[in-house]
Amino acid sequence: MSDLNHTPAQWVAVDWGTSHLRLWPMGADGVPLCRIDSDKGMSRLTPAEYEQTLLNLLEPYLTSDGEVTVVCCGMAGSRQGWAEAPYMATPCRPPSFETATRVATGDKRLRVHILSGVKQSEPADVMRGEETQIAGVFATHSKLDGVICLPGTHTKWVSVQKGSITGFSTFMSGELFQLVSDHSVLRHTLAHEGWDDQAFDAGCRDGAARPDHLANALFGLRAAALLNDLDPVAARARASGYLLGMEVAAMRDAWRGRPVVVVGDNAIAQAYATALKIGGATVEIFEAEKATLAGLSAARAQMK
Amino acid sequence: MSDLNHTPAQWVAVDWGTSHLRLWPMGADGVPLCRIDSDKGMSRLTPAEYEQTLLNLLEPYLTSDGEVTVVCCGMAGSRQGWAEAPYMATPCRPPSFETATRVATGDKRLRVHILSGVKQSEPADVMRGEETQIAGVFATHSKLDGVICLPGTHTKWVSVQKGSITGFSTFMSGELFQLVSDHSVLRHTLAHEGWDDQAFDAGCRDGAARPDHLANALFGLRAAALLNDLDPVAARARASGYLLGMEVAAMRDAWRGRPVVVVGDNAIAQAYATALKIGGATVEIFEAEKATLAGLSAARAQMK
Repeated sequence: MSDLNHTPAQWVAVDWGTSHLRLWPMGADGVPLCRIDSDKGMSRLTPAEYEQTLLNLLEPYLTSDGEVTVVCCGMAGSRQGWAEAPYMATPCRPPSFETATRVATGDKRLRVHILSGVKQSEPADVMRGEETQIAGVFATHSKLDGVICLPGTHTKWVSVQKGSITGFSTFMSGELFQLVSDHSVLRHTLAHEGWDDQAFDAGCRDGAARPDHLANALFGLRAAALLNDLDPVAARARASGYLLGMEVAAMRDAWRGRPVVVVGDNAIAQAYATALKIGGATVEIFEAEKATLAGLSAARAQMK
Repeated sequence: MSDLNHTPAQWVAVDWGTSHLRLWPMGADGVPLCRIDSDKGMSRLTPAEYEQTLLNLLEPYLTSDGEVTVVCCGMAGSRQGWAEAPYMATPCRPPSFETATRVATGDKRLRVHILSGVKQSEPADVMRGEETQIAGVFATHSKLDGVICLPGTHTKWVSVQKGSITGFSTFMSGELFQLVSDHSVLRHTLAHEGWDDQAFDAGCRDGAARPDHLANALFGLRAAALLNDLDPVAARARASGYLLGMEVAAMRDAWRGRPVVVVGDNAIAQAYATALKIGGATVEIFEAEKATLAGLSAARAQMK
């Protein structure tokens, strides 16, 4: 039953991650009619539940008889997702519509395609979703010869050249920070919100200079809280800075003397941009949603 | 009510940590009558509960009228413990009986003393309990000019010279490993037991060579499990090796060309000894219980 108050979607762009689901019913002019956010990420769904999840959210944008193309990126294409969309191996262009996996649906109004992820064999690494954001960056930066940094719980650093992904590295610094902040002996030492630019800056420099001291530097925050009443907000920014300083230093050979595009617009992306600038990099910020939509739109445009 | 089947204790040695409590009622010959293990660590007790905890465990070793000296080290002396035993500041000798804190008890048969911990102001660091093990090592290694490594959840590296503690560094690598193993995206990638010497060795070398890549190396184990079926036991040993390789490298200036005494006899201590040997250090293992008892006995012997 479609709601006549809604304009039918020409096609649907979907970013289906581990914990989140985002849908953009698209209008005739290539502009989203709206964005629908849901918490029905991969981790909460069995394969059989994906179709109904889509139908529940998209019903108002479907017509009773027409077929609508749905282009998905992200963890929906993982082995534990809706249907496995095999990885492309580096070096490669960002996966296109051509290599997408068609998923059969009971409801004939849906025509679902899941884009492939990208894998690297040595050192072993994987991505699902970020490759589509990279395609989105290429839509406006076709000649980019540099590094695309996609910050998150598991941040990706992607070397790109002539429209191809030549290699990439994932860092789980965000997850380490969260674990230390929520579950370690530092859980009462680190504030859970708030920021201190100066402490972050100092942390970045220390992490870059003495990465091997990480486990000592973290315990030192607890000792400084005990002995010197270290401010919890400063402690939080310092711990975060230490981890990002290490990470930026580790990727130095990839970004030195090359342009860096940071995909994101939240606090984490800002922190990465700051850490990169402290390290001496030239950084451009690229909005995450814009990258995802441009990547999914590029795949849609490749449909014959 | 004393149990007449037990020999009364001449004095009692106590190691009162965060999660464990160990008591040794001592015989006339300086040898423990037995060892009593309890889970009544600091984290489970309010200050008012310490005395009764001692009495419950020691009753069989007390006489109805005599006074028995109880010498404690560890977290019982922290601000959240039984009574705060102020820290001595480095450089210093391991705290002696002279600076111990006398704790008043309702039961006059107990005469309780808590040994001080040690603090370092720059960089901020603290220890409680390890200083007593160091005193215990000094009992047989009075001229040691080197490093004492005390492995654990929070490992201490202590520089010693002429019977003094000149400085120390705490690393929470053990806690980081536990967090990654139990709570991170790697919780299904890392086995929770088992060992692989070769993978540990490779991890140590990688961690020493590229400490800044830690967050990438850890995620790489997950990717290698996904793409190459990496064995979970090898993944566990590799992650542990990476963290210990970093730590041993960070302490290289302290141990290079100097003797290293590792206090401990469990798997963690063995792993540290191995990581140190891979790094090129000369290592002697010193039994942990022997160190604690010798340190507490040394303090008892200082009583006037």
